[in-house]
Amino acid sequence: MPTLYITRKAHFNAAHQLWNSNLSEQENLDLFGKCANPHFHGHNFELFVCVKGQPNPKTGLVMDLKDLKKIIEREVIEPLDHQNLNLDVPWLDGTMPSIENVVVAIWERIEPHLPWGAQLHKITLWETQNNFVEYYGEN
Amino acid sequence: MPTLYITRKAHFNAAHQLWNSNLSEQENLDLFGKCANPHFHGHNFELFVCVKGQPNPKTGLVMDLKDLKKIIEREVIEPLDHQNLNLDVPWLDGTMPSIENVVVAIWERIEPHLPWGAQLHKITLWETQNNFVEYYGEN
Amino acid sequence: MPTLYITRKAHFNAAHQLWNSNLSEQENLDLFGKCANPHFHGHNFELFVCVKGQPNPKTGLVMDLKDLKKIIEREVIEPLDHQNLNLDVPWLDGTMPSIENVVVAIWERIEPHLPWGAQLHKITLWETQNNFVEYYGEN
Amino acid sequence: MPTLYITRKAHFNAAHQLWNSNLSEQENLDLFGKCANPHFHGHNFELFVCVKGQPNPKTGLVMDLKDLKKIIEREVIEPLDHQNLNLDVPWLDGTMPSIENVVVAIWERIEPHLPWGAQLHKITLWETQNNFVEYYGEN
Amino acid sequence: MPTLYITRKAHFNAAHQLWNSNLSEQENLDLFGKCANPHFHGHNFELFVCVKGQPNPKTGLVMDLKDLKKIIEREVIEPLDHQNLNLDVPWLDGTMPSIENVVVAIWERIEPHLPWGAQLHKITLWETQNNFVEYYGEN
Amino acid sequence: MPTLYITRKAHFNAAHQLWNSNLSEQENLDLFGKCANPHFHGHNFELFVCVKGQPNPKTGLVMDLKDLKKIIEREVIEPLDHQNLNLDVPWLDGTMPSIENVVVAIWERIEPHLPWGAQLHKITLWETQNNFVEYYGEN
Repeated sequence: MPTLYITRKAHFNAAHQLWNSNLSEQENLDLFGKCANPHFHGHNFELFVCVKGQPNPKTGLVMDLKDLKKIIEREVIEPLDHQNLNLDVPWLDGTMPSIENVVVAIWERIEPHLPWGAQLHKITLWETQNNFVEYYGEN
Repeated sequence: MPTLYITRKAHFNAAHQLWNSNLSEQENLDLFGKCANPHFHGHNFELFVCVKGQPNPKTGLVMDLKDLKKIIEREVIEPLDHQNLNLDVPWLDGTMPSIENVVVAIWERIEPHLPWGAQLHKITLWETQNNFVEYYGEN
Repeated sequence: MPTLYITRKAHFNAAHQLWNSNLSEQENLDLFGKCANPHFHGHNFELFVCVKGQPNPKTGLVMDLKDLKKIIEREVIEPLDHQNLNLDVPWLDGTMPSIENVVVAIWERIEPHLPWGAQLHKITLWETQNNFVEYYGEN
Repeated sequence: MPTLYITRKAHFNAAHQLWNSNLSEQENLDLFGKCANPHFHGHNFELFVCVKGQPNPKTGLVMDLKDLKKIIEREVIEPLDHQNLNLDVPWLDGTMPSIENVVVAIWERIEPHLPWGAQLHKITLWETQNNFVEYYGEN
Repeated sequence: MPTLYITRKAHFNAAHQLWNSNLSEQENLDLFGKCANPHFHGHNFELFVCVKGQPNPKTGLVMDLKDLKKIIEREVIEPLDHQNLNLDVPWLDGTMPSIENVVVAIWERIEPHLPWGAQLHKITLWETQNNFVEYYGEN
Repeated sequence: MPTLYITRKAHFNAAHQLWNSNLSEQENLDLFGKCANPHFHGHNFELFVCVKGQPNPKTGLVMDLKDLKKIIEREVIEPLDHQNLNLDVPWLDGTMPSIENVVVAIWERIEPHLPWGAQLHKITLWETQNNFVEYYGEN
């Protein structure tokens, strides 16, 4: 049986700020520059969720992409879209919302909900058209 | 002499909120839904500035795109990038920052700085990959 | 008051075939080549709906894009997505589904539903990444 | 000698339907929803073929991309473009044309034709702008 | 009968240099900066040809896009692809190859070959992902 | 601590030619076809630099993307943008500028400048919208 990697894309718009609350305002501005703007800035984030598995002989599918879409919607897009990543999201509370940290948190949200036989392989998060981060669950 | 339309693209990331301060919180939420989130949300805005003119016989150019780039940078990108459109931009003060209103304000910023023979023709502003606004200076 | 043009994007996947039922099979194959494949072929269509108007002073918006999205969904995307444009769509019955004819039919579907003050300006339909058609309601 | 991965992109438009002929119509509709539309739907498929190898010291190339383009054209694009994946393609006969199954069949078509020193590494197939599948030949 | 605008996209890769041979080397460097590099630089140019007309009742098409593709290929892509716009193209001889001047020359190449009922409406030429020029045949 | 892969995108425009100076003109034309045009051709190259590491607990970042941007600008974009890859770049001297060879040279330029804890993982270089090369530093 062949092993395949299927990916579903989604997007959300959010505000955030790079700010470490254990540091002074000056230290934050020195570390993060304009990304530390106290009134926040924002992005159109693009999210790709990649799942690994073998196609079900009955359906020809690794998993139903409509199910994967629903999981992503419920676990990630609804809680994050049009929100402030520093202030509005309980499961990001205490997390500096760099895309590195957000992508790890998204992995934790999605991984428990995948059906038997579908293994989470990679989460990719684009912050702008010029930068993105990838996470394979490596620790 | 032929008439040509040249366009330069730029982008900025900003936070904003749809909120009319003459209305109650409930009225704002009813009008704007999640776009009225009091903690703001944000976007990667894409801006296209289109200038109309006839190419200079000496240079073959309607205008030097490096000059147009500098005008856009100084007048729009520096003041807006990584800012909060509701709170941080003096020339948007008192303006509800819908993309409709922002694009008109951007026209006013750029138009006085174009060189002789180059006429501002259109400003286009993409808010997400799914919606944008165009303005031709029509009143 | 400034006049602005706002555009909302949507997409649908459909099968179609270029085939004129008043002509013979040979004439159809001569006219349309592989686009006349009797078992159909298909596309990911991208639709842009552009509306013209002046922003409402209370909201700063030409019209609520969530309303425009709902109109497009109900009138165009639901009836066309994952359908066969030759066989499955009552309001395309008797219409050769070239993108030229489909875009005129889409105009007729959307135009009656726009709110007061928002005027349909242009429908754009991309068939592939290499070709698209635009319609301004000109007859 | 460095090892490099070169990728060539191609595209084709086709109709298909998710339908398991061993199941009843109702079971197919329950399993696949609108993807089981009996009149088919379709997509603009984007195909990426990635080949691994070391650059030839004489040419600086892993392989001539014009040769790779010809192989992809002859083996995949000509047989699939403007066709119905359920009905028109002998080498997909008996295969439920999910992108998972199609991508494995494409691997089998391309792999025997690569020149000495160029190893097929990955086939990627985008079905819509929101989902794609990758195959590395793993069984 | 509705009036429609259909557009076909093509692309070519070419080298060029902004250089006015009536001026000194220093004047050219002052005017054009790095765009005057005497060893040339280059681009992936994207070309959009937009044709206006009414769909033929028999075919539903403004014109056959395969015919438009052939005209663009023969008149523009073959003479320009992988060429040097300053040195290799007889019909650009004596023309400073700014995109403004190139787009006017492309209009002249395509316009005489369109079939009866199809009117050339606009030529668009992207030089990079950040700038493009449009020409409507206005003089 | 999770391991993450962050990528930064940049672009440059350049001329090049596929030409092996140890071969005759006829052999070059036979090997490389129109890519051997003696007057050069060119591209808008897109470069992606991917760095692997663990986020710094203080900043939440694998490395400061502004620093990565500066390294890419100084080491790659400034020396290559608007240049001729065959003639103008000392560190490509003697290198046939296929994208395979250029991407290996770019790896050597960037790798020594990354900060402690950030490991160069992959360089990707797109030559046109239809082909790209990836390098992981494998020898």
